[in-house]
This record gives sequence, C-alpha cells and structure tokens, in this order.
Amino acid sequence: MHLRLSCPAPAVPMDRITLAHGGAGLASRQLLETVFRPAFATHARDLTHDGAVVHAAGAKLAFTTDSYVARPLFFPGGTVGDLAVNGTVNDLAMCGARPLWLSAAFVLEEGLPMGDLRAIVTAMRDAAGEAGVTIVTGDTKVVERGKGDGMFITTAGVGIIEHTAAAPERVRPGDAVIVSGDLGSHGVAIMSVRDGLGIDRVCDGAVDASVKSDTAPLWPAVKAMYEAGVDVRCMRDLTRGGLASALNEIAATAWVSIDIDEVALETGTAVRAACELMDLDPLYLANEGRFVAFVAAADVPRALDALRTVGVSRGATFLGTVEKAHRGLVTLRSRTGGSRVVDLMAGDPLPKTR
Amino acid sequence: MHLRLSCPAPAVPMDRITLAHGGAGLASRQLLETVFRPAFATHARDLTHDGAVVHAAGAKLAFTTDSYVARPLFFPGGTVGDLAVNGTVNDLAMCGARPLWLSAAFVLEEGLPMGDLRAIVTAMRDAAGEAGVTIVTGDTKVVERGKGDGMFITTAGVGIIEHTAAAPERVRPGDAVIVSGDLGSHGVAIMSVRDGLGIDRVCDGAVDASVKSDTAPLWPAVKAMYEAGVDVRCMRDLTRGGLASALNEIAATAWVSIDIDEVALETGTAVRAACELMDLDPLYLANEGRFVAFVAAADVPRALDALRTVGVSRGATFLGTVEKAHRGLVTLRSRTGGSRVVDLMAGDPLPKTR
Repeated sequence: MHLRLSCPAPAVPMDRITLAHGGAGLASRQLLETVFRPAFATHARDLTHDGAVVHAAGAKLAFTTDSYVARPLFFPGGTVGDLAVNGTVNDLAMCGARPLWLSAAFVLEEGLPMGDLRAIVTAMRDAAGEAGVTIVTGDTKVVERGKGDGMFITTAGVGIIEHTAAAPERVRPGDAVIVSGDLGSHGVAIMSVRDGLGIDRVCDGAVDASVKSDTAPLWPAVKAMYEAGVDVRCMRDLTRGGLASALNEIAATAWVSIDIDEVALETGTAVRAACELMDLDPLYLANEGRFVAFVAAADVPRALDALRTVGVSRGATFLGTVEKAHRGLVTLRSRTGGSRVVDLMAGDPLPKTR
Repeated sequence: MHLRLSCPAPAVPMDRITLAHGGAGLASRQLLETVFRPAFATHARDLTHDGAVVHAAGAKLAFTTDSYVARPLFFPGGTVGDLAVNGTVNDLAMCGARPLWLSAAFVLEEGLPMGDLRAIVTAMRDAAGEAGVTIVTGDTKVVERGKGDGMFITTAGVGIIEHTAAAPERVRPGDAVIVSGDLGSHGVAIMSVRDGLGIDRVCDGAVDASVKSDTAPLWPAVKAMYEAGVDVRCMRDLTRGGLASALNEIAATAWVSIDIDEVALETGTAVRAACELMDLDPLYLANEGRFVAFVAAADVPRALDALRTVGVSRGATFLGTVEKAHRGLVTLRSRTGGSRVVDLMAGDPLPKTR
C-alpha cells in the first residue's frame, strides 16, 4: 500500500492554522469553505484554483496569483525563482490564457545572502524570457531575522483569453482525459534535498543525482492544442497534491466521475525507485511542468499529435474518460485488473513544493 | 533638529540583505539599481514605484503589486487586511487607473489563531466593498512555526486607465503641487502599538487613544479631479518614507526641483505632539490615505474644489511649485523664513508600516 492511501484522515483543529491548511487536501478545502468563501463570496469559484476570468473594455483576461514558499531555495533542476515564474504562467495557461505580464513581490529575511537573491532574480529573468512574459511591476519588503524564511516570492499574472475559456464547468460525460507526461519529478527533486526526510539514507544517494524538477512553462503545449483546433474543455497543472488532487477537484466541480488507467501513467525510473523505497504514490506527488487536459473524445488524436510536437508535452498520453455514474468520484483501473478509488489527501505531510 | 534629518547616512553592506534594504531610502534604491534593474531591465521604470501600464486588446490597464508585512496585524484604525486592499487600490489610483480587480495571496504561519485570520479577511472584504473592487483570485500557503510572522498578505491589482496615465515624466516646471490632507497618522498609529519604541513612556499613553491610521481608498479623490477636467500630471501616495520620499523620487525622475511651503503642511494635534516628543519629522512618516498631485498651475482652483468635495481629501491644500533650477532637489520654505533641503532617508529604522 502507498503512504497517501493508507493514512487515515487526521482530525484538523480549526482554532489555529496548521500545516495541513496549506496542503492540497481536505483541511485546505475546509479553510477555503469556512473562512475565504464567506468573505469573498462573489467570485468564490475562482478562489479555489488557478485564475479568474475578467472582462475589460472588450478584452477577456485571466488574472491569477500564487505565493512560492518551497524550500530549499535551490533544488535539482531549478530555484524558487523559476517556480514563481513558471507556476503563475502555468496557472494562466490552464485558464486557456496566453500569459503576458507578471508582477513579482519579494518578502526577504534580514541576513539573506545577496548572492542568493541575485541568482534567483536571474533565474526569474531567464524563466520569463523562455515563457515569453514580461515582469512589469514589483515590490520588496524586508522582515527581521527569524520572522521569515530567506525569501518568499509572490507573483501575479495577467493573460489574454483568445479562445473559449477552459473551466471545469465545461467538462461533460464522454470527454477524454489526457496527461502531458511522466509524473513526480518535482516532488522527488525537492524531497531529495530536504533534510530529515531520510530519502538520502533510504535511496543511498541515488535520487539526488538523477531526478530534476520538471519546472517549465506549459503555454506552448496549450497553444499547440488550440492551433490544432482541439476543443479544450478544462486543464489543470498537477502541482500540490498531484494528479489525484487535480482530478478530484474537477470531478467534484464538474459533478462527473473520472475513470483513469494506471497503465497510461508514466514515471521515470528514478522517481519510481524513490516512490517504492519511500512508499509514496506518484499520483500525489507535485509536478511543475505537467498537466491534464479534458478534451472532446473525437479530438484525442489531434490533441495528442499537437502535444507531442512540443518538448514539454512530448510524453502526452490518453489517460481515461469522464463518466456520468458515481459523480464526484475518481477511480483507477490498476495494472492487476482491479479498480480503486483515488481519494483527496487529508493533509500534506510532505514538504512544500511550491 | 528632527531625527530623520540629523542622522548621518549609515553605510549599508551589500553582501547580505539588511532591514535598510526594505526601507524607503538610499539602500532600497541601491538594491533596485544593482539587483532588480539589471535583471528586469525592459520595464525598469515601472519597478521603482506603483504600477505598470500595459495594453491588452484595445484596453489600457494598470497592474501593480505589494506585500504587506506591517506589524502588529491589528492597530488603531485598521488591520493589515485593510492596508493590503487600500494600498494596492491606491497604487492603481496613483497611475490614474480606476481600480477593478484584486488578487490576494496569504503566507500564514503555523499557529496563527483562526480568529485573527477571520477578522483580517473580513476587514479585506469590507475594504474591497468600500473601494469598489472585487477580490477575484487568491492563494494560501502555510509555513512552519518560526518561519514567518503570523501573516504576510500580497495583493496585486488591475485597473483601467480612461485618461492620460499619470506619471513623473509628465511633470514640468511651473506645475503646482497639491497635498490631499494632514500627514503622519498611519506612522504614529503603528508606532503607538509597537513594543520597545518607548512612545508609550514618552507620550504617557496619550498617543494610543487619539491617533488612528488614515488607511482609506484614494480613487474617489482622483476621480473627482478627472471629472472636474483637471490635467493631472502625476500622483503619489505618501506611504513608506512619507512626503519627503515621494517628492524626492518624483524630482529625480522628472529631473526638476520641487519647492514646498511648510506653512501648507498640516499635522493633527496628537501627531504633532508625538513628533515633538519623539523627535520625528512628519515629512518622513508613513500615510495610507494621503497623496500629492502634480497639476497644471491653472488647474489648482478646480483641483482643490474637486478634492474638497470628497471625504478622504477634504483637507487638500496647495503645497508648492515645480522649478527648473537645482534639478533633482526638494526644498522646504520653513515657517521661520529659511529654506532647507529635504533629503531622501538613508535607511528606515522605524517599524514597517505597510
């Protein structure tokens, strides 16, 4: 059994903020429903994930934000700066928006080495260049030593929607689910350099050398689908909580069930080794350059053709289908022939990956 | 002599981040010039203050962000939540943009009382309602106890520019400077509830009871000027570093000098008392509901008439003029007849006010 599925849901107290409230599971959903939704009710759906769609003087825009608190600041394959650019770019892309402008706000802890800041800012510049976005505005605050954690970056992004906006409400029974590539690299890369997780000991150092974060901009993949004329119903990047959380959220919002095929799921050799040794389920591991797309069933061949022409999604495969029965449920047909329910995580005991 | 003017500029080391890098003075400007500007060069001007102006499908938009790290979370007249809404609304208004949409990203520290979070989120809802903006998207992260400071909020804002965008480049010799009201309430309100600053002892508790933050949305004041047909060249809210920093920044950017009249400067009785007792200069104190407007000289009467019809700017007065000589310099004609240079602060030893 895998760790994510074998843990009973812990009781999350609601009188104080706990780490579970920042996870991808039930506790954070509870926080959203009891604290944020009652206050920001008018656009409550938009608070749950990714970006909001707004209209300005004839233009249809997407607007999104995310704070990046991943530790350590530097990890195999990237930095918190790459994440802060690509993560927000991807949230826009998942709305079907062409990413255009980013803001960047820094909360720096007194004592942060200037060299670290320079390296991360340079990584942000390079990531913005690769993603085709411009960082147009920013802010810097400094907090006293011991009141922060080196650096927190919050980016917001604005993009333009030139097609029908992608959203869970557009998903319907009969639609196909496509996953853009192999799973789990970002989560394992972060774990491989975190102290106290024991992965070094368990994996005997093998993981450090081989697994790099998959952080990358997803817009080129999305753009390829639009240009091929694919009717893209909904997309989600597979970040905190991984594929399992993304599918559960969409099944609940679109009020459908989703049936996926374990055979279609790819993980790299090193990620698979790490998962087996650590008893982790790649379904719940974070990715920063992977997404699922829900498309009309008839569009699967051209969606796959389009995705496979783009580097970041060259490993795209057909993953499963949307069903009418058992609404809200995600099920997985396993390699051994059985079928099991893929739950939402209760908490998030793993290190923060974004 | 006032504290701000009598301190020699401290040498700021550039190998590590210090609190001065987060202030409104020379150190933060140095950080911008040496770290951020080289990386984000294309739109470097926009990184210095307030918002960026971008064009999307025929619409002219302003886009801005700020992190709010003011301590304590609750202070006389407001909360960090009010600040996070009004501050970003005001940055948009200072571009001449009608504020429309906000994002809100929370970095919460494990152990934060849920009641504090609820109260602050409620304050944000109320402030957004009053300012006429909608919080359309958000994010929540939780960091381990000891890796944060209760709560950091980062808001970003998007607004629409329906007039000529206000910017320092539009300021020219002969223009008039208007200040929208009395100075220093926010700075003193924050200091009155900070431990270890000695203000309680010095002021014998008198300040706590009487000075409230001036946090408020400024768009109604700006809108009134536009509706009266005023040619608004440039505006700045008088936040970190106060009036002195705002005028110095504009004088340097527009390459003009600015001559202001001390007689025109108002401070409330309690703020004045606190400044005298603490040897502070209200020119450098933070405000969260005050701004300066640079307007064509001929427009002064109608600008003042328009501003005085709106609650937040009912105390608006003519403050001084823009000159050609001594470019980059800000001078103040004092009550006693002399003239002195108003410098940029070197650091920011006062508590963070935003």
